[in-house]
Amino acid sequence: MDKLQQGWFSEHSQQLWPGQCMSLEVEQVLYEGKSKYQEILVFKSKSYGNVLVLDGIIQCTERDEFSYQEMISYLPLNSHPNPEKVLIIGGGDGGVARDVVRHPLVKSAVQCEIDEKVIEVSKQYLPSMSSGFSSPKLTLHVGDGFDFMAKHQGEFDVIITDSSDPIGPASSLFEKSYYELMKKALRPGGVVCSQGECLWLDLGLIDNMQKFCRSLYPVVDYGYTTIPTYPSGQIGFTLCSLNPETNFREPLHVWSDDQLPTKYYNPDVHKAAFALPQFARKVLNGDADPRKTQVGSQEH
Amino acid sequence: MDKLQQGWFSEHSQQLWPGQCMSLEVEQVLYEGKSKYQEILVFKSKSYGNVLVLDGIIQCTERDEFSYQEMISYLPLNSHPNPEKVLIIGGGDGGVARDVVRHPLVKSAVQCEIDEKVIEVSKQYLPSMSSGFSSPKLTLHVGDGFDFMAKHQGEFDVIITDSSDPIGPASSLFEKSYYELMKKALRPGGVVCSQGECLWLDLGLIDNMQKFCRSLYPVVDYGYTTIPTYPSGQIGFTLCSLNPETNFREPLHVWSDDQLPTKYYNPDVHKAAFALPQFARKVLNGDADPRKTQVGSQEH
Repeated sequence: MDKLQQGWFSEHSQQLWPGQCMSLEVEQVLYEGKSKYQEILVFKSKSYGNVLVLDGIIQCTERDEFSYQEMISYLPLNSHPNPEKVLIIGGGDGGVARDVVRHPLVKSAVQCEIDEKVIEVSKQYLPSMSSGFSSPKLTLHVGDGFDFMAKHQGEFDVIITDSSDPIGPASSLFEKSYYELMKKALRPGGVVCSQGECLWLDLGLIDNMQKFCRSLYPVVDYGYTTIPTYPSGQIGFTLCSLNPETNFREPLHVWSDDQLPTKYYNPDVHKAAFALPQFARKVLNGDADPRKTQVGSQEH
Repeated sequence: MDKLQQGWFSEHSQQLWPGQCMSLEVEQVLYEGKSKYQEILVFKSKSYGNVLVLDGIIQCTERDEFSYQEMISYLPLNSHPNPEKVLIIGGGDGGVARDVVRHPLVKSAVQCEIDEKVIEVSKQYLPSMSSGFSSPKLTLHVGDGFDFMAKHQGEFDVIITDSSDPIGPASSLFEKSYYELMKKALRPGGVVCSQGECLWLDLGLIDNMQKFCRSLYPVVDYGYTTIPTYPSGQIGFTLCSLNPETNFREPLHVWSDDQLPTKYYNPDVHKAAFALPQFARKVLNGDADPRKTQVGSQEH
């Protein structure tokens, strides 16, 4: 099937999710073009607002983007005692920047996005996300994340990597060398959080990444969120900390709705994000039976 | 688009999820027919095993069905102190029966499915689910759930309703009169758990159901599970108890992998199933800010 056919956009990927496909009904194609790095498509959908597509893969829709942006931002920001200075790698639509700069403890954020065209297109067609770019807390840098971090060592409390899938321009962001580079760019006790793919589709990749991360960071975890327009309806996050005391599963900060209004994130959702289905826990935690360590319940 | 086109099955519903559509690649159509109640299709998919479709809607796939079956079974069974006698309404594929009879505290289960043809087709094409039908603990009854319950009052500890969506033959199972009938069919302290639709698609329906359930039962809750092949990637459960002491969010029973092997359910997943995203919590809990009641975290 073609990507755009009979008024529907279909998200096929033989490599990433063979045999399954999400489609969204198209009201109007708003932009179609090719940047130096990728094909860019924006359309107005019938029921999900405006939709950004890169190389044929849905990156965000106006209807459900808040789930992903809030979780990739507030899982790490509420797990660090004082996340003053944040680096965002990728995230060209501006949604992560929007949610990072709203966090009460963040004093400044630097964003490094390689594809200027994605920023331009988002400013025009996704204003509710790209609003983050206009924050006085944010410095936007167009360039390669590897180069940027090599020149900025020991600077950041939190590094958030909002990338596309591990094929094409983002593939290097899923490799050990990238996590080594982030480690050097962090301040002492720093935390990283990266788009970490889906338990239902990518368990082998996730397991491999958890393993190499554990060789670099004393604390490593994986949480996830639900989001209808990502393949299989959810996406996860790879979280690492240089501080051995970090427990990603218990937020350090709790905010009122006035202090930090959210649509998806809350402290219970934060904790629940780490409750992995049994099939995933057995792989990511080895063969241990997690129920043998349960407390507070009636044992049989 | 047609349901079956160019080797793909597409799950369109203008009424239930306009503007979005999940498609699965078809290797072979195994069965196509029409029962007294609905159109039945079974196909072998490329990447999700065999798939059962009723009236154009995916009911289960062999690859991910365990998430739904385990959660609709073990959320209520592990929330009741002694769930000896269980009634299953619907569930013609046999998956819920399979998981209910495996529970160590269940002594007997009665299943009432209206469409005999679904049972027959599942026995032939979904043997890993329909295996539940051959348990000596199970009595299978072909007929209408309303009629059956009217004749069996005060008999069951747990009633599980595994229904399709609220259009067509299952629509009456989402109405107040059905919850009144279940209440009468329960023993004292009994618990019900029903397929409760999706937070991302059906929040108004869920809110309405929670409200009428609260007029009938002292304890009412809503939990959810992730499942790639249901629309938007998740589905929820309406839970009610006649016992005012019931807390669905904390399992009463914890089983070892030997006692009750699972692929999705575990006690942490049980608790996490009730952590609703902020947009849903605001609707289902009224305007209360749930974070003001958080404990164990640093308040700002």
